[in-house]
Amino acid sequence: MFKSIACTILFSFLCTLNSFADDGYRLWLRFDEIASEEVRNDYRQSVGQIFIDGDSPILATAGKELSDGLSGLLGQSVPLLDRAADGPGIIAGIIGQSDLINGWVTTADAEKIQEEGYLLMQKEQNGQQRIVIAAKDERGVLYGSFHLLRLVQTQSALSGLHLIDNPKIKMRVLNHWDNLDRTVERGYAGFSIWDWHQLPEFLDVRYTDYARANASIGINGTVVTNVNANALIFRPDYLEKVAALADVFRPYGIRIYLTARFSAPIEQGGLETADPLDAGVQKWWSDKVAEIYELIPDFGGFLVKANSEGQPGPQNYNRNHAEGANMLADALEPYGGVVMWRAFVYSNEEPEDRAKQAYNEFVPLDGKFRKNVLIQVKNGPIDFQPREPIHPLFGAMPQTPLMMEFQITKEYLGQGTHLVGLAKMYEEVLQTDTYVKGKGSTVAKVIDGSLDGHELSGIAGVANIGTARNWTGNLFGQADWYAYGRLAWDPEIAAESIFEEWTKMTFTHDPEAVSVINNMLATSHETCVRYMTPLGLHHIMGPGHHYGPGPWVSRMPRADWTSVYYHKADEKGLGFDRTASGSDALSQYHPDFQKELRDMDKISHKFLLWFHHVPWDHVLSTGNTLWVELCREYHRGAAAVTAMKEQWNSVSDHIDPGRFRQVAMHLDIQEKEAKWWRDACLRYFQSFSKMEIPADLEQPEHDLEYYESLRFPYAPGIRPRW
Amino acid sequence: MFKSIACTILFSFLCTLNSFADDGYRLWLRFDEIASEEVRNDYRQSVGQIFIDGDSPILATAGKELSDGLSGLLGQSVPLLDRAADGPGIIAGIIGQSDLINGWVTTADAEKIQEEGYLLMQKEQNGQQRIVIAAKDERGVLYGSFHLLRLVQTQSALSGLHLIDNPKIKMRVLNHWDNLDRTVERGYAGFSIWDWHQLPEFLDVRYTDYARANASIGINGTVVTNVNANALIFRPDYLEKVAALADVFRPYGIRIYLTARFSAPIEQGGLETADPLDAGVQKWWSDKVAEIYELIPDFGGFLVKANSEGQPGPQNYNRNHAEGANMLADALEPYGGVVMWRAFVYSNEEPEDRAKQAYNEFVPLDGKFRKNVLIQVKNGPIDFQPREPIHPLFGAMPQTPLMMEFQITKEYLGQGTHLVGLAKMYEEVLQTDTYVKGKGSTVAKVIDGSLDGHELSGIAGVANIGTARNWTGNLFGQADWYAYGRLAWDPEIAAESIFEEWTKMTFTHDPEAVSVINNMLATSHETCVRYMTPLGLHHIMGPGHHYGPGPWVSRMPRADWTSVYYHKADEKGLGFDRTASGSDALSQYHPDFQKELRDMDKISHKFLLWFHHVPWDHVLSTGNTLWVELCREYHRGAAAVTAMKEQWNSVSDHIDPGRFRQVAMHLDIQEKEAKWWRDACLRYFQSFSKMEIPADLEQPEHDLEYYESLRFPYAPGIRPRW
Repeated sequence: MFKSIACTILFSFLCTLNSFADDGYRLWLRFDEIASEEVRNDYRQSVGQIFIDGDSPILATAGKELSDGLSGLLGQSVPLLDRAADGPGIIAGIIGQSDLINGWVTTADAEKIQEEGYLLMQKEQNGQQRIVIAAKDERGVLYGSFHLLRLVQTQSALSGLHLIDNPKIKMRVLNHWDNLDRTVERGYAGFSIWDWHQLPEFLDVRYTDYARANASIGINGTVVTNVNANALIFRPDYLEKVAALADVFRPYGIRIYLTARFSAPIEQGGLETADPLDAGVQKWWSDKVAEIYELIPDFGGFLVKANSEGQPGPQNYNRNHAEGANMLADALEPYGGVVMWRAFVYSNEEPEDRAKQAYNEFVPLDGKFRKNVLIQVKNGPIDFQPREPIHPLFGAMPQTPLMMEFQITKEYLGQGTHLVGLAKMYEEVLQTDTYVKGKGSTVAKVIDGSLDGHELSGIAGVANIGTARNWTGNLFGQADWYAYGRLAWDPEIAAESIFEEWTKMTFTHDPEAVSVINNMLATSHETCVRYMTPLGLHHIMGPGHHYGPGPWVSRMPRADWTSVYYHKADEKGLGFDRTASGSDALSQYHPDFQKELRDMDKISHKFLLWFHHVPWDHVLSTGNTLWVELCREYHRGAAAVTAMKEQWNSVSDHIDPGRFRQVAMHLDIQEKEAKWWRDACLRYFQSFSKMEIPADLEQPEHDLEYYESLRFPYAPGIRPRW
Repeated sequence: MFKSIACTILFSFLCTLNSFADDGYRLWLRFDEIASEEVRNDYRQSVGQIFIDGDSPILATAGKELSDGLSGLLGQSVPLLDRAADGPGIIAGIIGQSDLINGWVTTADAEKIQEEGYLLMQKEQNGQQRIVIAAKDERGVLYGSFHLLRLVQTQSALSGLHLIDNPKIKMRVLNHWDNLDRTVERGYAGFSIWDWHQLPEFLDVRYTDYARANASIGINGTVVTNVNANALIFRPDYLEKVAALADVFRPYGIRIYLTARFSAPIEQGGLETADPLDAGVQKWWSDKVAEIYELIPDFGGFLVKANSEGQPGPQNYNRNHAEGANMLADALEPYGGVVMWRAFVYSNEEPEDRAKQAYNEFVPLDGKFRKNVLIQVKNGPIDFQPREPIHPLFGAMPQTPLMMEFQITKEYLGQGTHLVGLAKMYEEVLQTDTYVKGKGSTVAKVIDGSLDGHELSGIAGVANIGTARNWTGNLFGQADWYAYGRLAWDPEIAAESIFEEWTKMTFTHDPEAVSVINNMLATSHETCVRYMTPLGLHHIMGPGHHYGPGPWVSRMPRADWTSVYYHKADEKGLGFDRTASGSDALSQYHPDFQKELRDMDKISHKFLLWFHHVPWDHVLSTGNTLWVELCREYHRGAAAVTAMKEQWNSVSDHIDPGRFRQVAMHLDIQEKEAKWWRDACLRYFQSFSKMEIPADLEQPEHDLEYYESLRFPYAPGIRPRW
């Protein structure tokens, strides 16, 4: 009774009486009491007590999460029983290990459940309701438990529940671009939550809360170190720190991985070379891997960025990527570890269109990698732009399992301040058809292994997590973390249904407010593309930190780090000709896909300037010339941010003041910066088009010189001093 | 009724039902319901409602804090009335502005109340209890309100209450050594809470909570930028960010200050020189100050580190510190701003004992500074060592107001992991007698201005605050922040009474647990001195980051950055002879003080090796030789940490599990590191003494080579790669 009352007023209490605002730390793991007594009573009939038949750390986690979460939601203690009892409640366990569970699950159902998957069903027995969570392994029970919690959090009906859910992708990992000094490359939520200095003794409570959040959305691995790697992580005292983190993550079903600096045998081992064909080098890695597995028996393996942007790699020794990856794979193979080898490479020497280089390097190596190597490919061929066409490698290496690498952190998508729901972008990429095995050969099917029958499959998301009180800096960044996890589990889930889950778990059940917030999430990616890089523009941001507009950037250490390399604005027109008359990057895609892109009058406007150099006065399908369409797109984007502010204001009654204000302040920044992008880019492109911005549109506040003069030496993320 | 129930179980609810541990974010501002109904009822008789007679942002803050805090403590709404009402309750206001208050306060009392001070009294009227908070300004009302909250939090009696409390020191400021990229020099609680990139639009809720915490302990100013200063802070967009912070702080009575990089006229103004006597330079500063006051009418002024450790200053132009400080003071004077000019200087060229240099430079300038200049002096002559004798400047510049600079962050005192209560150290320094105006001329009286009749007075604490969820990294660091504020208000408060307040507000009212925790706080500084730098040793830590022992450090860019410079161990003995036969730093103190220090057989062991080079076999007053005493001191220190662990375990029933575990894990680190300090230092000094460590003591685990080989490239704080 006490708890029941407490739950309903917990929030107002925290905010008012103690004057500490709700800061969003609890993410979507909010188990405040359900407001309606009727609904609570209904749930009490089916989930009022819990019995987990089995004993292991992960099963214990499942039990604790169910008990804690349901106790909060139902406003009464939902006990975790130590033996099966009569009466209604949850029973959970592993098929084949639990006689109780065996008695509930049909053979037909059991056959459909795969590794990490689960059956979730409601049954009646002697007039009492039972909820059964059955799986073939303990992770399955954990994920089923979180699924059940999600159903109650979103107030979904349990009556008649009968579902089997299996993960479509095997390795669902986060990549942390976190350095050992706690800076985060491309981190916009403060600094790294990994406090290496105080490990292994001091275990920040965030490590546990991080693991809980990930487990709740099915993430089962994490690479805790930056791909721009530091060999110090292999020093014995650092490995003990890694092991301490692994111990925290293990009961949540999460394996730890490390990035491997290719030159570590030199830096940590004192060898003269890191040549992958050198026996001493092979032995060093082999010994190091043995040392790691001694400390971390379920260590996941290595993620490697090699011969890219200054990182060492096999090419330093005239070896290819396969020779490099295979050497590490051989060291890991005895323990079941894998190598995730990144395809994000582009050569310094080659004058080739950067968009083509990874394909050129990797396609010839298809079939040459060990069985425990995955090639990790960014969604697009350049670098996490607001919008890119899919990477041409998807579908082009049928003998090799390809991992997707998405960015959750928003390096090029408004960083820590803009509300940009990434799920729509992930969905767009995953549902793109490569045509390589006929229509329907989507990217999702490439990476889940089904298209080419791969055993191994994986997906990586570059984390947006930092020391910010709300984890992600921008509160809506939580939605991206959440959506990434859900799509990693099943790339076929519609973005809209993910938004709905997240909004209800995070903010409110009010139908109108849910609808408004979902709409913000669903439209905001397109909005961002419009005010930053409409019509297929790309890579025109500030240099180094990638903050703000910088279409004028022309002097950098490499041509393909400049903006002019990508937009190719001149007096005639705008855009990168990647058709046969240009770089012919188009030719790297399947012919059926090429057909969609080849003709500047037929290509979707989304990719127009990615593939074509279009004259300023060319009339598009909208009836506008390129120049006018560009102006209107930039203005549509900025206007949509203003509209988003109004949308947010309209839901203020349904959001606690602490979190409401956070979002409102960020929307103010986003509106200001959307206009800045719009005006700076139009001023710049106008210097080529020599045309007027349509008179009905707001004219830029400043001249081009002003926009070019702005400097942000301490913009977050990587911190060079441009 | 609802609230009442909620309060009692709030904590368990947060911890259990929602599985988020209490992380210490609430500091000492915890207003959970008082457990005893009797006590609650008693308070309800006197503080059940509030009327603040007056209207201003700071008065509104006072009202809100009282209402929120008391509502929590009493478990019922304590309303803030908009007009005086009959019945028991609090009335607060400003003498001379509020007729109501004038009616309650006697002339005699009114005369005793000074700026920022207050009268707090309980009175009966018509059989009903009133609590009166009266002050001469709005800050006084705010501080009186927090005092009242503290009384209720610590469950002190209000009956018969009649006290007048005036701050003894006028400027009570924090110094943040925070860089604009969010790194913190000597920061051990994560990174800077100032997110300059997102200012001025995004106002992190921490800014408000920071202001609340400071106001609650009487801190009225903050320098938000590092003394190793960056001129970028003077760029107009950055000043707008500063102004946004100032707007958050203002309703809490806190003024903002900035560090001024002396070369800013060159870097930001484009001038050729920063010569303080140059008219163009003077104009630049004058204009810049005008620009600042336009944005921040109550701007406090500048803190300057000049000609010290590579910082530019007036000496670059052959001008002295007074000429530099006065130039800035003239710019600030029209607006009431001040210059806090640091005395932490030591010359590169001078071969003089570093301990003597600040005195030599500054004493000749006494009387040459403008009225709005204070000289900010570190507590000791070297640099925040675990223990130092007082700085010889205290008492030596009677014509100049001297500010105390304490370090709250524990650069040399265990950084983020060791439990070391600093209040005892502050107390030791403040109560040290300089003898300059006869016995009783304590340092406290120098800095509160009473000894020399100064109008201006100030004290600075280098903040230990960062992005850590609990603000200070080590939970007990909160006690140092708290104690600093309380001693800044009144340097005569006994450390023990501060510990008692803090422990009750932060942890528990259980008398035994309070006593145990207070004892930990009271003894831990001495313990730390023992295991790090016993008997007056100093500056023997790891180079650069100052983490861990490094008595062997001998090669650094400057001799006075090495350890051997300070401990001067040789085959004969140990310690720095600063008597007349040595550097004669002793001569900078008052003769009566010198008497206490001159004789190696009479000096307190605390300072023995600071002033004397003592033979290894010299027999001390304890009956032990120096070598044996050194060994025993190191062992006593480490043993005391082990004892502290037991003490903490003994209070586990009275502390929530989240915070209990935080402290327990840090104590594990402290124990390990105390032994490391002990063993590494003894192994090193043994290489000179050639004597055995007494056989009854645990022998070092490793040889000296091992300890010397340890490297910590990412130890927090400043991050050079030593």
